[in-house]
Amino acid sequence: MAQDLATGETREDDRYELDKSTVRAIVEAAEAGDAAQLSELIEPVHAADFADLLEQVETDEREAILRVYGTEFDGEILTEIDESIREEVIEALEPGVLEDAVRDLESDDVVDLIEDLDDAQQETILDALEDDDRAVVEQALAYPETSAGRLMQRELVAGPEHWTVGDAIDYLRARDDLPEDFYHMILVDLAFKPTGYVTLGKLLGHKREEKLLDITEDSFKTIEVTEDEGEVAYAFNQYHLISAPVVDHNGRLVGVITIDDAMMVLEDEAEEDMLRLAGVGEESSLADRVIATTKRRFPWLAVNLVTAVLASLVIAVFEDAIAQLVALAVLMPIVASMGGNAGTQSLTVAVRAIATKDLTGSNVWRVIRREALVGLVNGVLFALVMGAVGYVWFGSFALAGVIAIAMVINLVVAGLAGAVIPVALDRMRIDPALASGAFVTTVTDVVGFLAFLGLAVLVLL
Amino acid sequence: MAQDLATGETREDDRYELDKSTVRAIVEAAEAGDAAQLSELIEPVHAADFADLLEQVETDEREAILRVYGTEFDGEILTEIDESIREEVIEALEPGVLEDAVRDLESDDVVDLIEDLDDAQQETILDALEDDDRAVVEQALAYPETSAGRLMQRELVAGPEHWTVGDAIDYLRARDDLPEDFYHMILVDLAFKPTGYVTLGKLLGHKREEKLLDITEDSFKTIEVTEDEGEVAYAFNQYHLISAPVVDHNGRLVGVITIDDAMMVLEDEAEEDMLRLAGVGEESSLADRVIATTKRRFPWLAVNLVTAVLASLVIAVFEDAIAQLVALAVLMPIVASMGGNAGTQSLTVAVRAIATKDLTGSNVWRVIRREALVGLVNGVLFALVMGAVGYVWFGSFALAGVIAIAMVINLVVAGLAGAVIPVALDRMRIDPALASGAFVTTVTDVVGFLAFLGLAVLVLL
Repeated sequence: MAQDLATGETREDDRYELDKSTVRAIVEAAEAGDAAQLSELIEPVHAADFADLLEQVETDEREAILRVYGTEFDGEILTEIDESIREEVIEALEPGVLEDAVRDLESDDVVDLIEDLDDAQQETILDALEDDDRAVVEQALAYPETSAGRLMQRELVAGPEHWTVGDAIDYLRARDDLPEDFYHMILVDLAFKPTGYVTLGKLLGHKREEKLLDITEDSFKTIEVTEDEGEVAYAFNQYHLISAPVVDHNGRLVGVITIDDAMMVLEDEAEEDMLRLAGVGEESSLADRVIATTKRRFPWLAVNLVTAVLASLVIAVFEDAIAQLVALAVLMPIVASMGGNAGTQSLTVAVRAIATKDLTGSNVWRVIRREALVGLVNGVLFALVMGAVGYVWFGSFALAGVIAIAMVINLVVAGLAGAVIPVALDRMRIDPALASGAFVTTVTDVVGFLAFLGLAVLVLL
Repeated sequence: MAQDLATGETREDDRYELDKSTVRAIVEAAEAGDAAQLSELIEPVHAADFADLLEQVETDEREAILRVYGTEFDGEILTEIDESIREEVIEALEPGVLEDAVRDLESDDVVDLIEDLDDAQQETILDALEDDDRAVVEQALAYPETSAGRLMQRELVAGPEHWTVGDAIDYLRARDDLPEDFYHMILVDLAFKPTGYVTLGKLLGHKREEKLLDITEDSFKTIEVTEDEGEVAYAFNQYHLISAPVVDHNGRLVGVITIDDAMMVLEDEAEEDMLRLAGVGEESSLADRVIATTKRRFPWLAVNLVTAVLASLVIAVFEDAIAQLVALAVLMPIVASMGGNAGTQSLTVAVRAIATKDLTGSNVWRVIRREALVGLVNGVLFALVMGAVGYVWFGSFALAGVIAIAMVINLVVAGLAGAVIPVALDRMRIDPALASGAFVTTVTDVVGFLAFLGLAVLVLL
């Protein structure tokens, strides 16, 4: 049971959150230099939670904890720590502690740990590894970033496809270097190409004389070593895979990816899209400093400034009309704002559907048509509401009519732009999550002001 | 290799997408009533992909496919189908086909399948089950929606904690009703309370005389049956669990949740937050009809209309000032728009961090401080840019100064509001993803217009 945000209240739904009093106690023990007390407090905390704690405390508190807890620091904590403070934490560890921590890790965890570090730190960690492990890690790093090759573990369990359950069990029981985590035996042909797999549960549940080929899983899929990790995560989620063999360009088995790695990628990709849609750099973290955060958010705000100035240029065309009828200035942001929101609704649905492969060549026109129709229906509804509000407020049927018609136009345009722009960007191989927002807002702002002010000039002046 | 959206181009990164020509061929075979051809085309398609296909085609095409393919329809397809068309699909199946399809499924899949159906359809499916299965499903439905009890499977593998590896293997080999998917043997005490678990890999890799208690996993966590599925998914992701025992309020083992279920929940929750942030109902789907979609999006647009009208009321206060200096009407949307975007950046980061438990009582004040400072730095930068633009455009130092100062004020307020509002909503047990956007935009619109127009009246008129 954890503490509520910024209060002492306990909350059912924060069972897995570190509670504030534990965090305070750990920081205080570290600042007092009480190593025994600190160890005792940290001992029951899971490595993942301890990593979160290090991210959440102030920089000087973090330094104190690392200094006092130093020698007990283990490798798992390192892999759990957010990239934004990973270099700082590695920096703070004694060389001997770092070496011990890293030697404990599986090769895929070392890859994950060092791939984003600077060259000097990468070298330090590679030097700490034994020669065999170092070679494996360097091989993995030779694969493209975000590829299956970076994600896979090389420790695997495979057997010839003609084996029986008994053969497989005897082989497993004789091997003394089984991987830490494995859930299947992969069946391979004579060329070491994977042809299926059998779960350990099935091995244990069938008779010794049963042929492995007769008890393989339906969900078998192989992953190419150069495949993007996003596609890998999609395959795990879509086909409910627990693990999948990775093959090289000749189709030969070179590694295994397990679902926990895929789950992390899936979570990261969803987060990335969400943050990109909001114009926040994808690798942002709460532990980032003010300057890093500012730099990351500046570009999107700069794009938005261009959009806003464009919209202002449209307004400037109608300066005379506004001078004659100031009510136009009062009402004009409403049409633009409704369009912006309706456009964001459509584009978020489209961006998400592209990411989950629910929006494809088969239904793209239907989706665009639907978004335009939804814009039309909502446009008519809000035209009625806003027409009435406009009439009551300014007592002019003509003005009410102008805002009503502008509303319909802008909401239809918003629906169209919100669906078409992400699809078009995706076709041009530009990430729709990153760029759609700016384009859609530009369209809805410009069309919003243009439709409302243009109609006003035609009808009212 | 799949087809590009709306074109024929093939794309590396769409390896798992159904290609457009296959979809067309399936629809054509169905419309021609060619059952043999249809079966042949569908045979190699994974149930999950076939479900996607049914979601993507037009309603009449879907009906044709279901009619012609009918009798071969299996239960797995039903569980994969999106809720938006699930009732329609069930409706379209012959009673006999539905019965066969449902009897194939594991109990947790049946629960997942029927929990959102209407009462009549639920009854039809429950009636199709054998009595034992029906009882299990009804028991699961008695747990609260989105609780661990709904997510878990009751089929499990457990053994007394004093067993050796040999005891466990003999037990497994003797049992003839092992679950379809299981990865651990759960250890229980005399009161049937889980105390740890052993992976099947460890069972196979250790000597028969080894004690199970000596080879249990570190990552062991139990889940309470009433716990929210979001918390369950968080625990799986945070602690890299593959499966976890579920316990009742007495701590007794009642079921197991596996990582594939948790992964689906994690994906759904991230999607939900993303769509809620954009003001789209969380259960929206591309297969929804125009009216359903319109209904779902209307409330958020209505809230936005209120916000926009509020902002207009602020503008109306300054009608006289605008009449004297129309440049104010031209420039005013810029300050509001920049504030809205900066606020959205802050609130998206905050909402996400609350969801992932990275924003907690320990760092809430630091995060709020950081957001305000980022707003200040970006505010000053854009004040300089916009001040220069304003001066060049309108030739007035005073006007340039007014927009610059208003920009700084609104970006600081945006940062503060973007961090404080989600935290405050979360404390009040209101989903920050759902409601933050409207509040933050209201603040940045009102403050944006008020600061700019108010300063203009003080300085310029």
